[in-house]
Amino acid sequence: MRSIPIITLAATLVLAACSDRPAETPAGTEPAAQEARGVSAPVLPSWNRGTAIRSIVDFVAQVTDPASPDFVAPAERIAVFDNDGTLWSEQPLYFQMLFALDRVKAMAEDHPEWRDTQPFRAILEDDREALAEFGEHGIVQIVMATHAGLTTDEFTAVVMDWLATATHPRFGVPYTDLVYQPMLELLAYLRENGFKTFIVSGGGIDFMRPFTERVYGIPPEQVVGSAGELEFRMDDGVPTLHKTAGINFVDDKAGKPVGIHRFIGRRPILAFGNSDGDLQMLQYTAPGDRTALSGIVHHDDAEREVAYDRDSHIGRLDVALDEAPQRGWVVVSMKDDWNKVFPSPELP
Amino acid sequence: MRSIPIITLAATLVLAACSDRPAETPAGTEPAAQEARGVSAPVLPSWNRGTAIRSIVDFVAQVTDPASPDFVAPAERIAVFDNDGTLWSEQPLYFQMLFALDRVKAMAEDHPEWRDTQPFRAILEDDREALAEFGEHGIVQIVMATHAGLTTDEFTAVVMDWLATATHPRFGVPYTDLVYQPMLELLAYLRENGFKTFIVSGGGIDFMRPFTERVYGIPPEQVVGSAGELEFRMDDGVPTLHKTAGINFVDDKAGKPVGIHRFIGRRPILAFGNSDGDLQMLQYTAPGDRTALSGIVHHDDAEREVAYDRDSHIGRLDVALDEAPQRGWVVVSMKDDWNKVFPSPELP
Repeated sequence: MRSIPIITLAATLVLAACSDRPAETPAGTEPAAQEARGVSAPVLPSWNRGTAIRSIVDFVAQVTDPASPDFVAPAERIAVFDNDGTLWSEQPLYFQMLFALDRVKAMAEDHPEWRDTQPFRAILEDDREALAEFGEHGIVQIVMATHAGLTTDEFTAVVMDWLATATHPRFGVPYTDLVYQPMLELLAYLRENGFKTFIVSGGGIDFMRPFTERVYGIPPEQVVGSAGELEFRMDDGVPTLHKTAGINFVDDKAGKPVGIHRFIGRRPILAFGNSDGDLQMLQYTAPGDRTALSGIVHHDDAEREVAYDRDSHIGRLDVALDEAPQRGWVVVSMKDDWNKVFPSPELP
Repeated sequence: MRSIPIITLAATLVLAACSDRPAETPAGTEPAAQEARGVSAPVLPSWNRGTAIRSIVDFVAQVTDPASPDFVAPAERIAVFDNDGTLWSEQPLYFQMLFALDRVKAMAEDHPEWRDTQPFRAILEDDREALAEFGEHGIVQIVMATHAGLTTDEFTAVVMDWLATATHPRFGVPYTDLVYQPMLELLAYLRENGFKTFIVSGGGIDFMRPFTERVYGIPPEQVVGSAGELEFRMDDGVPTLHKTAGINFVDDKAGKPVGIHRFIGRRPILAFGNSDGDLQMLQYTAPGDRTALSGIVHHDDAEREVAYDRDSHIGRLDVALDEAPQRGWVVVSMKDDWNKVFPSPELP
């Protein structure tokens, strides 16, 4: 296992305060709301009774009841979820960026020139101050250097190897252990109610797809994300897709409704995000005048995870937090609405 | 109902010979092959017994039998189909191009300048010779003028209206009646055997999605195609997607494996096409060394449809026809393998 440098990357990527391993799970208030709705006990157990889960359960009842005026046919029950900060953690940096930094170290032997080239030198020397200078341009260089130049099959293998071996700097567990248990329960609950669940993330599509089916029960063809350019070649008669240096699509902000239309082709009736990067997806799904639900995971739990919103450089939540009450969006408090954050009994 | 001009568009779009309404369906040789495989009688009835359907049924048996060494888990049973010339007809022109030409006429009143601007003037005057001069550049101009500038919802409404009212110049029926009955049966048969069926077409994604679910049983989220750029805007507080003039992705030739990877994220185990535009998709699916089946619909039926392959400017089939025997691809003869072409009893 390689250690992960805790770095700061200029304006876009700033390290959130890392406390030591967090204290025990605070006592939940009351167990989940669904008993009141006649849903059997094991459903949504990590959600405390409250307005958040009540709104979700009421909405699902409304769209699945054939007698309801708001009934929605199963084919139209499209639910979309942001990934970073909504389905799994995104601190101290987007996990894909931690992957990229580890890749630089793993690839350094084949790139002696990196010892004298920024931003690679700063990564190899764990020089946080130098790294902080490079900003977005540096990030693009790092992502290109670590994500391009491989075939799609090779890249998948590299991602799977990293996920199997790397661990989170604070929690000391594999990154895929840092998914949110209440959101796993919500995904399963929606699918049981005839919804088709999709990821719509700013993260790279080739980085997510190797684990989404195992971890979230979401198959690759239901993952929408940012995508690099690809080139098809017959290599000695073998059909091969190569990842090249160009970027085809950035699935963030106003790109999210575009990605939804292009990849899914239907307007969702449920969307969940956690940041202003999700604003347009939440607006597109639930502007306030149609049968739809948009929700926000609010990171307000400094003890069990990290508390951040308006001033954070990762997952900044500002405009969407103001817009939520105007448009009737559900704001989920990690602190108050969840009695468990991560699936492992050893984590909060 | 507007009449449809029969035109020729330069090197890329050439009119295939239009006979009059075709003669009666030729007698099928023997009914479908599946009885021999223990499949109940109503399956694949429009396929004559022969090597083509036998290869398909054998392949499906092989990948769905848990005891078979070639068993494929249901999640990996991805089947991809080209649309134009594979699932529905593409003569005398791609139906989307006929739609675009009708759009020019419908929009002409709001564009008086078109009366003096080519290629629009040639369309409005049914001037085939002038149109033939404009080539690809003219086609791009026509597609841009007729497909951009609308919201996605408006464009969908226009497509649905056209499909409901326009009729084919030779057969005199709505275009969606000109789907191939044997391919509808094949799609249903694959789905009954746990396959997930996708369209992977060079056609426009926004042109296809309004009808694919009703006509093929393929939902919008399983349609991959060429895509224009989109812009998300809040119009007076209403979240809206506008189709702009740029092209984001051309899902043809080497673009097809790229589209498959980007939209689906799994390598198919079955692919069907009909032209060299499908070559790379067929190669990617079944290069010859993995458990997979690629197939080609060969348009060799001059009587019931149109006979064309190596020399056609629409749906040219040349390299793929040579490669088929080398890689073990199934070549389906419309003339010999299908006892019915179109679903309607009034059509061959």
